Amino acid sequence: MDREALKRYLSEQAFAVDRVLKSYLPSPSCDPPLLHEAMRYSLFAGGKRIRPILCIAACEAVGGQQEVVLPFASAIELIHTYSLIHDDLPAMDDDTYRRGKLTNHKMFGESTAILAGDALLTAAFSMLAEKGLAASISPKKMLRVILELGSASGSTGMVGGQLNDIEAQGKEDLSLEKLKRIHTHKTGVLIRASVRIGGILGGAGPKKLSNLTAFGEKIGLAFQIADDVLDVEGETDKLGKPVGQDQSKGRLTYPAFMGLSRAKKEAVVLVEEALSDIKTLGPEADPIRGIATFIIDREK
Amino acid sequence: MDREALKRYLSEQAFAVDRVLKSYLPSPSCDPPLLHEAMRYSLFAGGKRIRPILCIAACEAVGGQQEVVLPFASAIELIHTYSLIHDDLPAMDDDTYRRGKLTNHKMFGESTAILAGDALLTAAFSMLAEKGLAASISPKKMLRVILELGSASGSTGMVGGQLNDIEAQGKEDLSLEKLKRIHTHKTGVLIRASVRIGGILGGAGPKKLSNLTAFGEKIGLAFQIADDVLDVEGETDKLGKPVGQDQSKGRLTYPAFMGLSRAKKEAVVLVEEALSDIKTLGPEADPIRGIATFIIDREK
Repeated sequence: MDREALKRYLSEQAFAVDRVLKSYLPSPSCDPPLLHEAMRYSLFAGGKRIRPILCIAACEAVGGQQEVVLPFASAIELIHTYSLIHDDLPAMDDDTYRRGKLTNHKMFGESTAILAGDALLTAAFSMLAEKGLAASISPKKMLRVILELGSASGSTGMVGGQLNDIEAQGKEDLSLEKLKRIHTHKTGVLIRASVRIGGILGGAGPKKLSNLTAFGEKIGLAFQIADDVLDVEGETDKLGKPVGQDQSKGRLTYPAFMGLSRAKKEAVVLVEEALSDIKTLGPEADPIRGIATFIIDREK
Repeated sequence: MDREALKRYLSEQAFAVDRVLKSYLPSPSCDPPLLHEAMRYSLFAGGKRIRPILCIAACEAVGGQQEVVLPFASAIELIHTYSLIHDDLPAMDDDTYRRGKLTNHKMFGESTAILAGDALLTAAFSMLAEKGLAASISPKKMLRVILELGSASGSTGMVGGQLNDIEAQGKEDLSLEKLKRIHTHKTGVLIRASVRIGGILGGAGPKKLSNLTAFGEKIGLAFQIADDVLDVEGETDKLGKPVGQDQSKGRLTYPAFMGLSRAKKEAVVLVEEALSDIKTLGPEADPIRGIATFIIDREK
C-alpha cells in the first residue's frame, strides 16, 4: 500500500469512527450538559483514532468486514480518551495542553474532568454491550471482546502502567527492562488489545490470532518509543503540545536511556519484526502493514 | 422475616460477596502492589454490601439461585467502591474519613486514588464478562446485565448525578424536584440497577421485572434520604465519618429542605409504596422486603 493510499485509508476510517462516536454519545444538551460537553471536548479533539483503525485493519486482515467491527473498534477510543483526561490531571502528569487545546481539567475544572473520564470509561463497556446486542456477532464472542478490553485497560494493564510510570518519574536508576515494562503496560496493552479484538471479531483462528497478538505487542512498544522520539525532535505545532516535556518532567524515555538514534533504530527493528509476525497473511493485511510503518513515521 | 433472621441473612450474604471479591481481585503482591493495595483498602473497608445483597435478594425473589447471581452481584460493589473513592477526592467532596478510616487519597495519595477508582470501575466489567463466560447464564443475558450496569453508572446515571450534586452545592434556590433528581441519579439508579440485574438473572418476566424496577426506584431514593437523615442524627462512631457534614458543606438534603421529621416520613412512605410494588411476589421475596425496611432503619 503506497503512502497516498494509506493516508486515504486512515482518513476514511477515522471519519467512520468519528461518525459512530458522534451518534453514540449523548448530545451536549443531555443532562448534565457540562458533563457531555466535557466528554465530547476531549473525544473530538483531533485524535488520530489509531487504536480503532488498528482494530478495523486487524479484522480486515483476517477476512472480516469493516461494517461489522466498526462500532466495537470505536468503543476502544472511549477508553483511550478517558485515559488521556485522567493522565493529564494535576495529581498525575499535570499537563496544560493536549492536541493543541487546553486539557480537559484546564477547560472544565478538575471535578468535571475526573467525571468525564469516568463516564467515558463506563460508556466504552455500555457501547460494546449495546452494539453487541444489536449486531450479528455471537454474544459469547462479545463477552470475550469485553473481557479483552477490560483486562488490557485495568489494574494489570493500562492503569497499572500509568501508576508504574508515575512512581518511576525522577528515578535515575531505572533499568531498560523496567522502562520497557512501563511502556508495554501504559500504551502497549491497549494497542495489542485493539489488534486482538479486531482479530477475534474478524473470526481469526488460534494461529492467526497468535500472529496478530505478537504483531500488536511489538507495534505497541514501537508506538510508545516513537512518542518519546517525537517529544525530543517533533514540532510543537504539529504535536499540539510543547516538546521536551518528558525531559523537563524527569520521565525516563527510550531516547534518554539509549540516545535518540538507537531509540529510533529500536522502533524500526520492532516494526520489522512485527511485519514478519504477520507475513503469512494475504493482501487483506496490507492496510495493517501500512499502519505499522506509519506508527514510527508520523509527525504527531 | 424477623429482625434476627434478616440480620443473619445480611451477614451471610455479605460474607459470600466478600469471599468472591477477595478471590477475584489481583492479590496485593501483583504488580503494581501499591495499586492493588489501594483497591483492596477501599473495597474491604467495611461496606455493608447493600447493592450486591439487593441483587441477590431480587434474584431469589423471582425464584433464582443465590449461587448463580453471586459473582455478578459482587461486581456491582466494585462500581460502588470506585464511586466512593472518586467522590471523596479533593476536587470533589474533599473528604478525610469514610467508614472510620482515612479516605483512599488520604491514605495513598491522590494519583493512586484516581487510578484505584479507574481500575475498580474497569474490573467490574471484566468481572461480569469473565464470570459470564464461565457461568451457565446465556451470554446474551450477560450483555443485557453489562448494559444495565453501564447505563446506570454512566453519564446519564450515577456519574451525571455526582456532577449535578457538585454543581448544586451551596445553591439556595434548589427545588425539591431538582434535589430528588440528584438523589435519584447519584444513588438511586445503581440501587435500581442492582435490583433489576438480580431480576434479569433470576429469569423474571416483563411483569415481575417491572415490579422490581418500581420497587428499586423507590428504595433507592429512600436509601439516600436515610443517608441524609443519618448525617443529621446518626452517631459518628457508628457512621465512621463525622456527622453534620452535609450542612457544613452546604449540601441541600431532604432534612434541610423539609425538616427532619418530614424527611423521615417521606422515606417511610417510599418504602411502603415499594413494598406494595412487589406485593404479588411470594415468600421468596421476604428477604428483599426485609432489606427495604432495613434501609431506612439502619445506624450506618
